[in-house]
Amino acid sequence: GPRLLHGFRFEHLSTGAELPTREALAKLPGPLAAVLLELPLRDAGYLLPTWDELSSFAALCQEKEVPLHFDGARLWESAPYLGHGLAEIAGLADTAYVSFYKGLRGLAGAAVAGPEDVVAEVRQWRQRMGGTLFTMQPYAVSALRGLREEVPRMAKYHDYAVGLAERLPDLGIAVFPDPPHTNAFRILVPVGTEVVMSRLLTFAEAEKTVLTPPWRPADVPGWSWSEFTVGSATLDWTIDEAAALLAKVLLTD
Amino acid sequence: GPRLLHGFRFEHLSTGAELPTREALAKLPGPLAAVLLELPLRDAGYLLPTWDELSSFAALCQEKEVPLHFDGARLWESAPYLGHGLAEIAGLADTAYVSFYKGLRGLAGAAVAGPEDVVAEVRQWRQRMGGTLFTMQPYAVSALRGLREEVPRMAKYHDYAVGLAERLPDLGIAVFPDPPHTNAFRILVPVGTEVVMSRLLTFAEAEKTVLTPPWRPADVPGWSWSEFTVGSATLDWTIDEAAALLAKVLLTD
Repeated sequence: GPRLLHGFRFEHLSTGAELPTREALAKLPGPLAAVLLELPLRDAGYLLPTWDELSSFAALCQEKEVPLHFDGARLWESAPYLGHGLAEIAGLADTAYVSFYKGLRGLAGAAVAGPEDVVAEVRQWRQRMGGTLFTMQPYAVSALRGLREEVPRMAKYHDYAVGLAERLPDLGIAVFPDPPHTNAFRILVPVGTEVVMSRLLTFAEAEKTVLTPPWRPADVPGWSWSEFTVGSATLDWTIDEAAALLAKVLLTD
Repeated sequence: GPRLLHGFRFEHLSTGAELPTREALAKLPGPLAAVLLELPLRDAGYLLPTWDELSSFAALCQEKEVPLHFDGARLWESAPYLGHGLAEIAGLADTAYVSFYKGLRGLAGAAVAGPEDVVAEVRQWRQRMGGTLFTMQPYAVSALRGLREEVPRMAKYHDYAVGLAERLPDLGIAVFPDPPHTNAFRILVPVGTEVVMSRLLTFAEAEKTVLTPPWRPADVPGWSWSEFTVGSATLDWTIDEAAALLAKVLLTD
């Protein structure tokens, strides 16, 4: 998109399962128009920097006078691990994007926060690119529900994820990262992808419950991985029940 | 938008209250990448060409081998005047855009119809420009309701508009076009804009009913104009009642 439409050029601070670091930023030849951090880094297993790493990264951006943007699609889910309030976290960046349809469980949509003049420009570009809808009421309503009902539960979801990730390895399910940084983490099993998918679907058909998104082959032959996300439905089970169920469904025929 | 983002250059087939004609197209120096017709032409008072004019215009596009696109935001409302079915009308164009939130009374959204390869390209550009939402279910649901409940009433709305436009001049309200081409037309009164707006708002406050969109000064000093759109709520009044009410609210203190 942005490359083709606007001629943007991207430099990567990190690739794969690595977090962008202050050191990587220091080494990048300038000048940079903006720096973007995804919090958490989903393709790395929902990894987060520590608060100290994050604030030191932000300080370097300020020093270099380059605007820092947070892709905070799961920023709500990141606050418990970072150990700071949402306003403090967002305060490290110049602009922050948040998603309405992930942790907030809204229908769709997003918001960008930042200084008034920057947001006015964002609004103009949204109009130019055809992104201004006649009404966004359904999205706004469902996002407001999420802010009221989901955000206060994020610490509970994170605690549950940490507890579940602690139990799973003993039952034969590997986890990454350990402990999880957010309410979501990777789970890995020594089972072929087709077999584990067929077990998941058999369970889904019988119980009308989908435990995980689709599985993919891991780097290690014979292993597969998927993501496990803790949400309000997960809390219907105790951690022991959830761990036992995952092991039963994913590891036995 | 398109000018700035994609370097599009536009030539106008007509400006102001004139309809684009086959003659105007024939005179335009080529080559053209595409020709766009708005049906009806809203800024001209919801004007439509006749079916013969439209099909002859489309034939010239085919002759010139330039794709014809219908901006059919109010295409549903145009079918009764054109006297042909929606599929026949759309069949004159290479691609057609329809709106979900005007005549269909959906929440927002639109659709583009055309040959598979063109729509595949449209889909790709929608993605690139950030217009692909995680879900569009609320819009789709409300548009489907409109297709089922509003489209079959379009002829009735148009008939009502024609009947109402016939009654209004005797009561001191001018109309354009006469007869209306769709379910919407312009109404004009020999009253200053502030006065007519204040009468409209007094009525809206008392009766919780907004009769028209905001009024604007007409070219003729002392006159003002607005649009009147016939929809399902209008049918709660007989044509005589609606005409009398408009005259009472707009023309008397």
